Amino acid sequence: MSWVAIRRTLARMYYETIRQMHKMLGQLDVWLETAATHAETEALDPNGFLELRLAPDQFPFARQVQTACDTAKLAASRLAGKQAPTQADTEQTLDELRARVGAVQTYLDRFTEKDFAGAATRVVTQPRWEGKMMSGADYFLEHALPNFFFHLTHAYAILRHNGVSLGKRDYLGALSLRAP
Amino acid sequence: MSWVAIRRTLARMYYETIRQMHKMLGQLDVWLETAATHAETEALDPNGFLELRLAPDQFPFARQVQTACDTAKLAASRLAGKQAPTQADTEQTLDELRARVGAVQTYLDRFTEKDFAGAATRVVTQPRWEGKMMSGADYFLEHALPNFFFHLTHAYAILRHNGVSLGKRDYLGALSLRAP
Repeated sequence: MSWVAIRRTLARMYYETIRQMHKMLGQLDVWLETAATHAETEALDPNGFLELRLAPDQFPFARQVQTACDTAKLAASRLAGKQAPTQADTEQTLDELRARVGAVQTYLDRFTEKDFAGAATRVVTQPRWEGKMMSGADYFLEHALPNFFFHLTHAYAILRHNGVSLGKRDYLGALSLRAP
Repeated sequence: MSWVAIRRTLARMYYETIRQMHKMLGQLDVWLETAATHAETEALDPNGFLELRLAPDQFPFARQVQTACDTAKLAASRLAGKQAPTQADTEQTLDELRARVGAVQTYLDRFTEKDFAGAATRVVTQPRWEGKMMSGADYFLEHALPNFFFHLTHAYAILRHNGVSLGKRDYLGALSLRAP
């Protein structure tokens, strides 16, 4: 076994999964655009979506979007051992949420495969864990990935529940299908 | 670069991600149990949950659970080049859905790291793709993983929307936190 090969393979897997998060954020942008069109067609306030939620004690739509963005941003920065820029969570409109999504995509574009060398064994912690920590590998699989999809899917579900016409293709986006 | 090391590393990554799906199915079982307790406390029919949905043209709860189960099952079997057992989607009760979840977990328990050697380059297809195909690597990242979390999170969201008391810990489950 070659440790160099293992480290490079792991780095590529993390990089490709972060790129998949980048792609899903692009789909989220499509949903935000579709919500704006829906509001226009129905003569609704497009920014009314931001406060909608599925349960009184769940995050409203705006915070689902913000948290999906932050989860992707922090996954990349923590696995690469970099400090992520902070964002103020002050978005009041669909357009501002789209700008937030775009800003995170631009941030993710800065990362290369090499940034994730050593990601699996990196020590990850956050204040909520009260001094405890996780390995990068565990953090990514057990925390970042499930949380990213949790908030992303809640954003999708809130729009669907409120009449925005979205389907599985809007969720998944284009697939790398090829001829046999 | 050693191809043996790369193949083994990839196999382990697929295996560990399938194990994470296994863990999330265990959390789904906790939500189903919590829904049953909620129904008992509120004197509701526990099986009424199965038909609930967030939008008229979305899958109801039962089918969200079935599809999450199938997505995990098919991800493992397709990446390993095995034929998965089919299930009939005839569940009528929360207990039957819990049995379905348990059956998929038992199926996933049969897989070892070695089963996923060659998973990244395996050819994956399904009738819906009309003769086209994806590599195992693309299929897993672009299709299986997002779909799994989509249906899993919709199951969670439907229960939360209907008053079942669940929180982020019920979603994520136990984390591999350790002392510094």
